[in-house]
Amino acid sequence: MHPNDPKLRSFIAVDPSSDFPIQNLPYGVFFTPEQPDLRVGVAIGDFVLDLAVLEAAGLLRIDGAANVFAKPSLNAFMALGPKVWTKTRARISELLRHDNPELRDNADLCKRALVPQNFADMHMPIAVQGFTDFYSSKEHATNVGIMFRGKDNALMPNWLSIPIGYNGRASTVVVSGTPIRRPRGQLKPPTADAPTFGPCKRLDFELEMGVVIGQASAMGEMLTEQQAEKMIFGFTLLNDWSARDIQAWEYVPLGPFQAKAFGTSISPWIVTREALEPFRVKGPVQNPAPLPYLQQKGAQNYDVQLAVDLKTETMKEAAGICRTNFKYMYWSSVQQLVHHASSGCAMNVGDLLGSGTISGPEKTQRGSMLELSWGGTEPLDLGNGVQRSFLEDGDSLTMRGWCQGDGYRIGFGEVEGTILPSV
Amino acid sequence: MHPNDPKLRSFIAVDPSSDFPIQNLPYGVFFTPEQPDLRVGVAIGDFVLDLAVLEAAGLLRIDGAANVFAKPSLNAFMALGPKVWTKTRARISELLRHDNPELRDNADLCKRALVPQNFADMHMPIAVQGFTDFYSSKEHATNVGIMFRGKDNALMPNWLSIPIGYNGRASTVVVSGTPIRRPRGQLKPPTADAPTFGPCKRLDFELEMGVVIGQASAMGEMLTEQQAEKMIFGFTLLNDWSARDIQAWEYVPLGPFQAKAFGTSISPWIVTREALEPFRVKGPVQNPAPLPYLQQKGAQNYDVQLAVDLKTETMKEAAGICRTNFKYMYWSSVQQLVHHASSGCAMNVGDLLGSGTISGPEKTQRGSMLELSWGGTEPLDLGNGVQRSFLEDGDSLTMRGWCQGDGYRIGFGEVEGTILPSV
Repeated sequence: MHPNDPKLRSFIAVDPSSDFPIQNLPYGVFFTPEQPDLRVGVAIGDFVLDLAVLEAAGLLRIDGAANVFAKPSLNAFMALGPKVWTKTRARISELLRHDNPELRDNADLCKRALVPQNFADMHMPIAVQGFTDFYSSKEHATNVGIMFRGKDNALMPNWLSIPIGYNGRASTVVVSGTPIRRPRGQLKPPTADAPTFGPCKRLDFELEMGVVIGQASAMGEMLTEQQAEKMIFGFTLLNDWSARDIQAWEYVPLGPFQAKAFGTSISPWIVTREALEPFRVKGPVQNPAPLPYLQQKGAQNYDVQLAVDLKTETMKEAAGICRTNFKYMYWSSVQQLVHHASSGCAMNVGDLLGSGTISGPEKTQRGSMLELSWGGTEPLDLGNGVQRSFLEDGDSLTMRGWCQGDGYRIGFGEVEGTILPSV
Repeated sequence: MHPNDPKLRSFIAVDPSSDFPIQNLPYGVFFTPEQPDLRVGVAIGDFVLDLAVLEAAGLLRIDGAANVFAKPSLNAFMALGPKVWTKTRARISELLRHDNPELRDNADLCKRALVPQNFADMHMPIAVQGFTDFYSSKEHATNVGIMFRGKDNALMPNWLSIPIGYNGRASTVVVSGTPIRRPRGQLKPPTADAPTFGPCKRLDFELEMGVVIGQASAMGEMLTEQQAEKMIFGFTLLNDWSARDIQAWEYVPLGPFQAKAFGTSISPWIVTREALEPFRVKGPVQNPAPLPYLQQKGAQNYDVQLAVDLKTETMKEAAGICRTNFKYMYWSSVQQLVHHASSGCAMNVGDLLGSGTISGPEKTQRGSMLELSWGGTEPLDLGNGVQRSFLEDGDSLTMRGWCQGDGYRIGFGEVEGTILPSV
């Protein structure tokens, strides 16, 4: 059976509401207090399957490579290419099947290879080479454009022709659970004569998906749609923390810099492109038609449901503040990657592409506080008298994502970050 | 004697016009056809001194580390920190002194450790982690601003408060001599209704200095002027190749992306911050005074003379098209680095900061074709009827830089790139 077959069952019991059934098998990097070496694992139900242990036991052989899982990142495995990714996923699926005794009936190996997720500390799954952030939701670009430049100039003239993006800062991409310190920066409200330097007052999140590039391309080389697609290893949830007041003053004419440099959080599990195959959908109609190099034949969007919860220090339970879907993106990840390489820009194993904030057509589908509170003019009511226009110290923000199958879900886990006060 | 002492002489004869007297000792990474392993060397006169050979011979001991020079980049050495940099430079200077027999009288070791530069192939000296490009020449920003937005809006309101910069693409930073392929991209002249995709028609260079960061800072940490300065390992020449037509259409609102992603060239030798000490000068008066976090006490600019030569396929000799000086920069490298970390952005060993195009007050001191040909309206006359507004296929562009001492010069060598036709 194909690893995506809905009828597959693992010998480990997995609840239908779990993010990690046998049809998913996302990759991550973890360690345990007892064994602090970083290694690659796959999530299955409430467990992490330790691939380094399986490899050492001879149950998982990787063509042309050894020891690819006893590593602090997925980069070495990703570099082996899409054929190896497919073969490895199929073999892991086989090992976890309810009717395969190889691992199931080896109690000692099960004990060593299956680590309860409660006992595992998740680490950054990849060594990020370049981090690029796009701006590909038409709803988001329009909302922000109205607030920054008025209704008549909301969408820039180039937006419908180019998957607009900028290079972000790779050094501060961190894994879920890493606290985010409120940045300081230059602030100049429109009414002030001169800027001051101090803690950001309009701290925001941006709900995005991250695309993990698993293959390199050469400098001077362009990519076709087919080549680009095969370079995509998988997807994560991504929170592009943003300092709106720093951004407003610094961004002309070279774009966001310190407003986006203090932290970007990703979820620890990389859901493979292959696992998402059953959830492909067509994106919005692109009008005007993209230039030939950006045209795509297949359905290149994915139906991934997304939810954002916010919990302040005084709240007992988090409040949902956004429900949207990855499928709304105007430019697909493949189009973004094709455009990224179009000038001859070399891509590297471990490059991370942020989709851009994912907003939908409805008010509750907006993927940032800036949009949800409409620039702070319509504070969000979180219940019990708690309101928020932007994020305050101690606030914890969590993003979740999942594809809903028939009786199972391909989940992304979550990406969480709590705001620390400025130093 | 201090390694910067003008009276120092090496046992290797060095012409006064050479870039590489004993007072310089810039670091690079090289290989030879006979020995293709990459290793670290120092330029002295017409030779490369092979530090891996010296280390293996026991003449060069690095505290707390072994084998730091038998490496494909300087990153491992840089990571050891400024005290080690100082000590190592002093020891190399000592070994090269005319009155020190240790290396001088060891004919066998000299033969193995001193490689004629003619026989050495220079490689990228560092593994670039992040590449950030600033925009810190007031003359350049004003010239470009006039052309893009008119005289009244030339300098953006934030320019005098912030060392404006953006994240560039690290994957395409290449060493001198690497050909640069003319990029393709979306072009939309103001008169066209819609963009087309094709080869760049306004290909440009940008004369910059690159600052090499040799120490890391933590996420969430700000830097003082003193901390920032100690993190700077050295300087290179940097050519930030630019596609002006792609840039004009893509850069709003998130800044340059593909227009700058196809290639950035650096010179192979990193001149240490220490070697430049005698050439410190004060920069332009900063008015208004920078915010406190950006204020600097010392003279943080450097008097580095810069020259750009252009040679077309039909020319026998290159023509000089620009002569300027690094000292004109409004924002210093230290101010750029302090600002870069001001939001809590982590810096890494191997980060590269471009100064921004270096233009001076005079017309001949402009550091880009865009400015030299005033947007193509005043083509440069290269002699014999050859004219250029922008770069054409087959053009070779060379930048050189040097500090002129009394009877010696601290030179940077050169950074060259030749334009290949678009694919």
